[in-house]
Amino acid sequence: MKINKELAIPLYQQVKDYLHKKIISGEWAAGYQLPAEKDLATQFGVSTITIKRAVLELVDEGLLYRQSGKGTFVMHIEEKDISKFVTLKNEEWEAQHHPHKTLYFNIVQADDELAALLRIEEGDLMYQIQRLKIQQDQPVALEYSYIPQELFPDLHQEDIDDNLLYNIFQRGYGVQLDKAKIYFSTVLADEYQAESLNVERGVQLFVFERFTFNNDNHIIEYSKFIIKQDQSKYFLEIKL
Amino acid sequence: MKINKELAIPLYQQVKDYLHKKIISGEWAAGYQLPAEKDLATQFGVSTITIKRAVLELVDEGLLYRQSGKGTFVMHIEEKDISKFVTLKNEEWEAQHHPHKTLYFNIVQADDELAALLRIEEGDLMYQIQRLKIQQDQPVALEYSYIPQELFPDLHQEDIDDNLLYNIFQRGYGVQLDKAKIYFSTVLADEYQAESLNVERGVQLFVFERFTFNNDNHIIEYSKFIIKQDQSKYFLEIKL
Repeated sequence: MKINKELAIPLYQQVKDYLHKKIISGEWAAGYQLPAEKDLATQFGVSTITIKRAVLELVDEGLLYRQSGKGTFVMHIEEKDISKFVTLKNEEWEAQHHPHKTLYFNIVQADDELAALLRIEEGDLMYQIQRLKIQQDQPVALEYSYIPQELFPDLHQEDIDDNLLYNIFQRGYGVQLDKAKIYFSTVLADEYQAESLNVERGVQLFVFERFTFNNDNHIIEYSKFIIKQDQSKYFLEIKL
Repeated sequence: MKINKELAIPLYQQVKDYLHKKIISGEWAAGYQLPAEKDLATQFGVSTITIKRAVLELVDEGLLYRQSGKGTFVMHIEEKDISKFVTLKNEEWEAQHHPHKTLYFNIVQADDELAALLRIEEGDLMYQIQRLKIQQDQPVALEYSYIPQELFPDLHQEDIDDNLLYNIFQRGYGVQLDKAKIYFSTVLADEYQAESLNVERGVQLFVFERFTFNNDNHIIEYSKFIIKQDQSKYFLEIKL
């Protein structure tokens, strides 16, 4: 295919449209390595600068990624069900391993804000936990959890390493979970978050705040998940 | 209350903590007007600069807002159920008015990307609609909708003014809706979005992309909602 230099559409845009179609149609699947830029330039009869501009815009749009020294590839976008991310069900617990790196584990007194969130008294003891969720050896989320100690008097760091809190609540303490209320917001990565999640500072991150209720309508935990968005599309299915 | 100038905690931080507690505890409810800054300065025995710094940080955190010439108030945060936002149920349709301003309504040929999203052929006709969703006289979301024309052959702009698409599908065409799949992402407001939604350029916006499926598992519409976050907390409840 040659580019039409008579058209009012800029050359890089024509190249971009062509590459875009290859990706969207699925002809170039996830992981497909693009031809070298100079080969594409020859093929289209344009400069490598034009090719590079088209490619970089598709990188910015998340359709392609570049690996230095290796080339340019079609991005694999993983779809993640939010309801599973925050509320894994039993069968899946059994089958899966849940790697987490515990960064902080302590029993502290609730300040006014956390007491209000957990509906306990200021000064009441709670577990304060900070973990890094790992998937395929990559950090995907920073998790901050706050749990009233009274409900789970004997929780230790070893219990939560590589496990889900829901697992511990239900199987370790026989607590009946009723519902999770999840708030969505966003944050621009600060230095600590950027370093922990291996992203650039200022990148947009998702914030999921989860309140878990037991059958007595008590809040048994509050967790804040700070999640990186790259290579994942978070979705939910709602029955109509 | 006086500020303790012997403490290692900066004065503005002590003021901020005090104000924070008043808000979080609910003692100062949504809409409460703060005392004048010079009165607070006298009360705490600090400068108005110190007060202003504490107040401005709480404004940045979304707990307070300032109205020029009027004063500083405690923010009212409205909680919005995402599943209702995207999939209003019958009873609510009847009771509510759904103001929308239609910005664009046309029948166009699907390009490769939209054809792939809607699972139709490139070049097939579809409705392309752009609307502004209004709540309490304020723009809250930009909505882009794409609907295969074949399914709803006789749709007019008058039909969608101040109405929900789901309403039209079910009541106007008797379509049985099965489920909605909703993808979450974010975007930084560009100039057009900022102007439409009355926010600053570069502000973080939510993007909800909704695919609606009928009982035959066909996609009957694809909508992209670009939503401003201020004064709203979006949440979901998931049964465990």
